[in-house]
Amino acid sequence: MSAAARGPPLAQEDLLLAAAYVYDAQYNRNIPFETSPQAVRLYYLYNHWTMQATTYFFIFVDLFLAVFEDPAVYPLPFLATSLVEVLCLLVFFGRLVHFAKVTPRNVFWKDTKNICIMMAILVTLIDLIIYGALKISNINSIRWSRFLRPIFLINFAESRQIRRVFRSIRNTLPEITYVFLLFMFSVLMFSLMALKLFGDRNLRTVEGSPYFTNYLEIVFDLYVLVTTANSPDVMMPAFDFSWWYSLFFITYVVINTYLFMSVFLAVVYNNYRKHLKNEIRKLAYMKRHKMIEAFNILKVKEGTEFVVKEAQWKQLVKQVAPDISTSHRELLLRVSDEEQKGYVDKKSFVRLADLLNIQVIAMRIQTHPLEHWMPRVYNSAVSLFIRSMVQHKGFVWTYDVIILINAVFIALDEENPLISYAEWVFLSLYILEILLKVYTYEPRAFFAKTQFWNWFDTSIIIAALIATILNASLKSASQYNSQQVLDIVFILRVLRLIRIVDSIQRFRVIMNTLINIVPTMLTFGGLALVVYYMFAIVGMELFQGKIQFFSRNSTAHHALECGNPALKDSLFARAKYCKNNFNDITSSFIVLMELTVVNQWHVLANGFALVTHQAAKLYFVAFHVVVVIMIINILIAFILEAFFVEYSLEKSEVETAIERKIQELGVGIQEEELRDGKLIDNMETNENDLGGEGITKKKSQGLMFKIASTRYRTVDALLQRMFEAEILPEDDGPSVDEILNLSPADVYPKNPTFDSTA
Amino acid sequence: MSAAARGPPLAQEDLLLAAAYVYDAQYNRNIPFETSPQAVRLYYLYNHWTMQATTYFFIFVDLFLAVFEDPAVYPLPFLATSLVEVLCLLVFFGRLVHFAKVTPRNVFWKDTKNICIMMAILVTLIDLIIYGALKISNINSIRWSRFLRPIFLINFAESRQIRRVFRSIRNTLPEITYVFLLFMFSVLMFSLMALKLFGDRNLRTVEGSPYFTNYLEIVFDLYVLVTTANSPDVMMPAFDFSWWYSLFFITYVVINTYLFMSVFLAVVYNNYRKHLKNEIRKLAYMKRHKMIEAFNILKVKEGTEFVVKEAQWKQLVKQVAPDISTSHRELLLRVSDEEQKGYVDKKSFVRLADLLNIQVIAMRIQTHPLEHWMPRVYNSAVSLFIRSMVQHKGFVWTYDVIILINAVFIALDEENPLISYAEWVFLSLYILEILLKVYTYEPRAFFAKTQFWNWFDTSIIIAALIATILNASLKSASQYNSQQVLDIVFILRVLRLIRIVDSIQRFRVIMNTLINIVPTMLTFGGLALVVYYMFAIVGMELFQGKIQFFSRNSTAHHALECGNPALKDSLFARAKYCKNNFNDITSSFIVLMELTVVNQWHVLANGFALVTHQAAKLYFVAFHVVVVIMIINILIAFILEAFFVEYSLEKSEVETAIERKIQELGVGIQEEELRDGKLIDNMETNENDLGGEGITKKKSQGLMFKIASTRYRTVDALLQRMFEAEILPEDDGPSVDEILNLSPADVYPKNPTFDSTA
Repeated sequence: MSAAARGPPLAQEDLLLAAAYVYDAQYNRNIPFETSPQAVRLYYLYNHWTMQATTYFFIFVDLFLAVFEDPAVYPLPFLATSLVEVLCLLVFFGRLVHFAKVTPRNVFWKDTKNICIMMAILVTLIDLIIYGALKISNINSIRWSRFLRPIFLINFAESRQIRRVFRSIRNTLPEITYVFLLFMFSVLMFSLMALKLFGDRNLRTVEGSPYFTNYLEIVFDLYVLVTTANSPDVMMPAFDFSWWYSLFFITYVVINTYLFMSVFLAVVYNNYRKHLKNEIRKLAYMKRHKMIEAFNILKVKEGTEFVVKEAQWKQLVKQVAPDISTSHRELLLRVSDEEQKGYVDKKSFVRLADLLNIQVIAMRIQTHPLEHWMPRVYNSAVSLFIRSMVQHKGFVWTYDVIILINAVFIALDEENPLISYAEWVFLSLYILEILLKVYTYEPRAFFAKTQFWNWFDTSIIIAALIATILNASLKSASQYNSQQVLDIVFILRVLRLIRIVDSIQRFRVIMNTLINIVPTMLTFGGLALVVYYMFAIVGMELFQGKIQFFSRNSTAHHALECGNPALKDSLFARAKYCKNNFNDITSSFIVLMELTVVNQWHVLANGFALVTHQAAKLYFVAFHVVVVIMIINILIAFILEAFFVEYSLEKSEVETAIERKIQELGVGIQEEELRDGKLIDNMETNENDLGGEGITKKKSQGLMFKIASTRYRTVDALLQRMFEAEILPEDDGPSVDEILNLSPADVYPKNPTFDSTA
Repeated sequence: MSAAARGPPLAQEDLLLAAAYVYDAQYNRNIPFETSPQAVRLYYLYNHWTMQATTYFFIFVDLFLAVFEDPAVYPLPFLATSLVEVLCLLVFFGRLVHFAKVTPRNVFWKDTKNICIMMAILVTLIDLIIYGALKISNINSIRWSRFLRPIFLINFAESRQIRRVFRSIRNTLPEITYVFLLFMFSVLMFSLMALKLFGDRNLRTVEGSPYFTNYLEIVFDLYVLVTTANSPDVMMPAFDFSWWYSLFFITYVVINTYLFMSVFLAVVYNNYRKHLKNEIRKLAYMKRHKMIEAFNILKVKEGTEFVVKEAQWKQLVKQVAPDISTSHRELLLRVSDEEQKGYVDKKSFVRLADLLNIQVIAMRIQTHPLEHWMPRVYNSAVSLFIRSMVQHKGFVWTYDVIILINAVFIALDEENPLISYAEWVFLSLYILEILLKVYTYEPRAFFAKTQFWNWFDTSIIIAALIATILNASLKSASQYNSQQVLDIVFILRVLRLIRIVDSIQRFRVIMNTLINIVPTMLTFGGLALVVYYMFAIVGMELFQGKIQFFSRNSTAHHALECGNPALKDSLFARAKYCKNNFNDITSSFIVLMELTVVNQWHVLANGFALVTHQAAKLYFVAFHVVVVIMIINILIAFILEAFFVEYSLEKSEVETAIERKIQELGVGIQEEELRDGKLIDNMETNENDLGGEGITKKKSQGLMFKIASTRYRTVDALLQRMFEAEILPEDDGPSVDEILNLSPADVYPKNPTFDSTA
């Protein structure tokens, strides 16, 4: 297997293995086929971030074309959009060819991803040609291949996570199908019961139509009741007749809404969890496998065992991670070669990828630049007083009070000139606060990567400053109050209030957890985008133009019935839902969002069924099944899982052997010491300028190494670490084929333990 | 500590310990203080099922009084209800005194349960006297102590599980409060933003009222949006104005509905799980502690170690479990005294409670009673043909087809005489089926405890037969078609169709899991009852009589406005929600159920606010917070947990050492052999008539022991087994005080493992 055989993602172990091959090739020892330095360079290029960014860019351009294609938000001629689409396809094809070059042929052709992409490109091209040809002969057909566009997002991107979710969905399907069939059986049975109980009673709904007389309508009504969207209306006629009948509906809701919907969540969550674990196990084994391969390339015999010489080791690390400092590298060497024998054994070498992954932050007691430039002024009595004032608890409290007063002013009437002047006062107060803080704390520490809230504050304030100035100048220049700018000013003003959350410790903890979830949520966003896009394309083909929106004062024909007489007297028209239509991609997305929220979806479904055909309801039911039963449950599983990992972290320290070693070497300091902010002004990331080989206790010189902990705060990374902590260092792991064939079924331990079960 | 010091629940270990004291007392060796045989008898009496049933009965009588008290469903004079209530209180007091007698004084007074009950009795009496006195002087006051009635259900009943849920809720409160505050902060901030963005736009809602101009109304509207009940209506005016504004609502829903609601679930679930584990750990340690105490009473010195003699052991088991067969007892002795030394050592003795808990089913190849009585007829060619026919797969399929045809007939019109005759045909076909099955299989096996579906079928069919005959005779006798009987007939007919689920293996598995959840759901039912009852009592005091229901053709004043002019033109009246009122306890429960389902709750809240005061909305918001955010999430946690335990069971065999021993002794048979139903005709529970001491391999004689597995299918029992499998047999566990003080915080293992986390 060649160095380049794995494709994305390009992790430390891939880099190391590639570097090992390069090293090997340079010293001309045994170049394997396909591993010329040029192949490795191609591989590096393939994984370069610019290439990846370009691919992403064109994927989103391709998806965005729906905005300009008929039915368009901003119409463009077919020629323009089709040319852009062909360009995108070319880029995709080029990317695929590049991937083929760095991948052994048999691996490339075995991968369904690649086949998918090729088919999608081909099919899209054919569709484009047919559609274009028909358009020339003035026949309007359907651009059905637009439905396939999300395939590029799923299969191309380095989005292992999205693919994992899709795999997980695919694997959940059989199980969820059985539960779904049972659920549908229950709905059908209850519908039959409802038909027998209420069908002959001559009851009427609120709208005056017959109540529960048609079996198919009952099935739809009761399916809607599962989503709770027509509760309690669907019950009222029977309830008015006799309160006993409410028991029928209560039983129905308990069984179908509470029991079955929870079962769906349980099935989805359980499968998600199983797959997550399996994938993580695969990743961990794969990493170890690659590291052993790299070791085998570089090893030389030293006494009775094979080792990697210190010189080679250093060269390798330099090549793979050129931007880490010398002292950091020495630290790693010291960890890998504990007894300073001049070489690294297999066990230590295998851990190198993890070692490089640990974000070690070098820290120094840093002096403020002002102290550097004008020490006298900075250390004068006034300056010292200001600094101690800013560091005082009262400073924070003062600003909390200011924020509260600000909130009241925001709520008050904007027209009052006094209040609009007050806005300037608050703005200057906030700017003063930031300046004071930067003056007191070290600017580089204040704007360190980890200081999320400082970044947040500063950007909100600066944006608000710019927007307010823009608004004021627009107003004075043209007497014209730009609504867009004003809206942004309002939003920024209110967002400023979030800061108060940051002053309360308990809220900060919850906020941090929520912020940690964001990266995982982005995966979910990708998933939602794919599903929404596909449904939006289908929805536009089915329903475009059937429902029109007219502004309130419009005198157009049938303006009140959304331009469609079929909607006369319908709930849809009466609720003024005319703008909920599929006439362009943004409207479609908004309607789909409303359907996701579920409420009133039956009104929407009935409306669209009235203007097309009763069968249109199937589209809405399908959306409910796919999005609410599958996708939303996966979202909940995401969040639950993330929180549970946070909870178990909170209670205990997950430390790998490596981290313990760094701590032992006396170069790490306890993280708790940092968390309370006392050391905030001494912190610096990516320490690079400090030479020297020794790394023992540098505290006196103002340099310390700290392990950045935030890195592990994603479910994936944390689980991987936990799994690795449990496999023995001597364990070579299963073979590549075994790894690839690991099934989620073996994830469960033979005998579930008390800890693992509940 | 005396034998009687623990109070309910009375588990095997309590019985054993009590029996050990009795034995000890009889032989007059060393009677500890408070452990006279009389005390033990009192203790037995306290735990006797009739006493427990009586307590439950009066608890429910007390709760049911609300049906007869003003505002009543069936009004009774105050004297009658108050006398019944006093009677209930007397019973509760008696029960408490009884408990005090069997409990050491310091333990009794330390227990908040008892204090609670005493306070509740006292307060209720005072309230009754005041209310009665005022009533005599014709002043109407409020019976506010009715609110306290559920306290008896929580604190009295042997309902450890309900108390656990309440403890879990109490412990979750601080954590959930912080999340809730953050969530409310977010709602308030978004409301402020909404006020600034939409307040000055002069927009109108569908009803024509100003849109988003009053801050408090915006807060309520956006809170409702979190529950999705007013989506998308609340968004439509802004959306009609510009589609950009829909982004505001989408962001709001994503953050507050999806993110925060999932976080609530995560917090509740995590706490539930933590407490569940802690309680189970406590229980397991307590059990071991009691068994060691019992051992210490009975022990005699044998050589170097303390043991319990075989004779004493047997006497103990006989006393504790008088209804198990001799052979079963011998089996247990054989497991406890492996080497047949004539005594049981401490390690084995400690396991006795578990041994007694294992439901061992003795099985014999049983002969059909008909074969016994008339072997010639039963084994004749015709009989053999019938039996083989019934056992054939085709028999099941035939009946599946019959059920499907039946379903079609049910759906068809009842008026057609042909179809109403068909009903008789189907009924006889089903009865024939049951008779044939009983003829073919052994009746005792067919109606064994574990044969849920056979019981279900038979009872449905017999009930349907009775109801149909009743209906027919009523019809022919009086030409009067009793609607109630007919309704029951309809429901039973449709329920019959469930049988088809049982014929499909995959469905059966899911159904069994659902059925296994039922006992846990009952705890939840108790919890819901408590909360609903309290809210219903408060609701009736606040809203009774404000809203009236009039039948459709009523000519009463303001019939369309539910008898209250304040509701004119309100959504409440327009949706014809008049029957949703708090005029009696059943109506209140139904309204609360509707509020639980959430949809349209804002319409209800607004309606009741119109007829009373805007502050009434707080009642509805409080109900939402308590029931939907806390209780429903606990329900979901229940179901998720139950399913996860089922899943981990599915994949692996959880076997304790004891069960392995039984298997080893060659008397157990694999459960799989049973599951496919082949052995169904050989199974019998509670085998009692087989004497003889030897229990080795009886297969040839037609007797086997089987471990009934269904018992473990509750989350609690299973987790306890798992935990016990993990504590060492030599481990005496912590002391009683330590056990009682175990905190959920130490439940998490120091280093979370890969298995335990995700």
